[in-house]
Amino acid sequence: MAEPLFDKIAFIGIGLIGSSLARAVRRDGLARRTVACARRRSTLDKVVELGIVDEVTADCAEAVRDADLVMISTPLSAYAALAEAMAPALAAGAIVSDVGSVKQAVIRDLGPYMPDGVHLVPGHPVAGTEHSGPEAGFAELFQDRWCILTPPPGTDAAAVERVAQLWRAVGMNVEFMDAQHHDKVLAITSHLPHLIAYTIVGTATDLEGSQQAEVIKFSAGGFRDFTRIAASDPVMWRDVFLNNREAVLEMLQRFTEDLTALQRAIRWGEGEKLQDLFTRTRAIRRGIIDARQA
Amino acid sequence: MAEPLFDKIAFIGIGLIGSSLARAVRRDGLARRTVACARRRSTLDKVVELGIVDEVTADCAEAVRDADLVMISTPLSAYAALAEAMAPALAAGAIVSDVGSVKQAVIRDLGPYMPDGVHLVPGHPVAGTEHSGPEAGFAELFQDRWCILTPPPGTDAAAVERVAQLWRAVGMNVEFMDAQHHDKVLAITSHLPHLIAYTIVGTATDLEGSQQAEVIKFSAGGFRDFTRIAASDPVMWRDVFLNNREAVLEMLQRFTEDLTALQRAIRWGEGEKLQDLFTRTRAIRRGIIDARQA
Repeated sequence: MAEPLFDKIAFIGIGLIGSSLARAVRRDGLARRTVACARRRSTLDKVVELGIVDEVTADCAEAVRDADLVMISTPLSAYAALAEAMAPALAAGAIVSDVGSVKQAVIRDLGPYMPDGVHLVPGHPVAGTEHSGPEAGFAELFQDRWCILTPPPGTDAAAVERVAQLWRAVGMNVEFMDAQHHDKVLAITSHLPHLIAYTIVGTATDLEGSQQAEVIKFSAGGFRDFTRIAASDPVMWRDVFLNNREAVLEMLQRFTEDLTALQRAIRWGEGEKLQDLFTRTRAIRRGIIDARQA
Repeated sequence: MAEPLFDKIAFIGIGLIGSSLARAVRRDGLARRTVACARRRSTLDKVVELGIVDEVTADCAEAVRDADLVMISTPLSAYAALAEAMAPALAAGAIVSDVGSVKQAVIRDLGPYMPDGVHLVPGHPVAGTEHSGPEAGFAELFQDRWCILTPPPGTDAAAVERVAQLWRAVGMNVEFMDAQHHDKVLAITSHLPHLIAYTIVGTATDLEGSQQAEVIKFSAGGFRDFTRIAASDPVMWRDVFLNNREAVLEMLQRFTEDLTALQRAIRWGEGEKLQDLFTRTRAIRRGIIDARQA
């Protein structure tokens, strides 16, 4: 086994993503010590039971003490208060990183609290499942997926590289991006798909009782796949939409225009328009299969 | 092995669904003889190569001669012309069934051509994948899924039961339904999800070149699942939307209202509304898991 990349990693928040990383770190010996911090006692008990970190605490200042890497994986709405609480305890030279699905908001919320000599390296491992909580994690979650790092201009290059090394060590490809660009790309590849899945499942949920039972019964026709996505963590996703408002609304506007055009084609029986689109969309699927992201 | 259910089954159209059924019929000895009819020589050659039926022909009248079951599995737009062409060759007492995703249109298109003494039993096995063509089929496709039969009032009960037996024999649960009700239920569980998936993948396809490459790269954030659905057969789906127009437009209207409400909640930062919906949608996923349709 190679030399550990970090002396002490503090996981602030330890749900699906945090606990998956903790498992991979333990499996590969990537840190000498690990600590998990969560607000709820039940979460900490679960983490102890799972045996995926060395220590647990409900006090984030205590967690980050002496840590050379602090990895935040809570919902976005908790970031600012956490940063304020942990800031006085951060070690000189420590790296603060995160796994949040929006990146401009992270820089906005964490940046002001970072003491001099502490390096903020925001990140987003683009991987996940519809399950949440520390028991849902698994070390292989990141394998062959992409991690996007969005360090603000002027960030210490060595700190960025250490975070990149960590994600590469657990199986990810690492890409660097401007936070604004990240938020645009993820609005279409992740945020809008979730919004739409939540919406259609909601539409079905509002059907009268007997029809709802049928929706469940005959869900194999396509609906089922949307319910999986729409089972994702409600608080995490609430925060994503509140924190990437502009990019999501912009993509939603494009989507709605396109949907209206299709609606019109259906109403007027314009089969050729439908078939043209349905043929074009196959190409992007092939692209995803070729890129081995299917 | 039990006595075969049918003497001769004629598969008219032999893509994903037709060829899956042909495979299951062969595996379980459900017919003494099988014949497949397709328009394209290349499809017939492929079917011969796969060895999943006894005979192939491009002439549907020849295919249905002496068949006690004719199973139509072509796109819906081909039904009326096929019915007209095969009608004179249908044997007295034969059953004509199908696997189409819309059922009122099937009764409208096939009904007028059915000779006296021929039994029309429209059906819809709710199962599938995004792949198409005879090589995409597999005998296990139907296992534990639901098949909906929509015989018009007055249909011979024995004929209906024989078709039900066939689907049960290949692993399906069978449900009986009025064709209009079927078309409503499938509009929300299958047709609208496909329409939305096609739309969002189309929206992404229209992004500028460099962004499109990123969409593929980072598709694991949720978009990926939509591309799978949007890779389904374009002609089949064109026909579904053209033939279930009213029910699809009605469900699309509900969906659009719900999406507009969410859009407004995002714009005004109404986190509670978002979280409420995202929490409610989890329940329907649990229902699907409990019903073992996940």
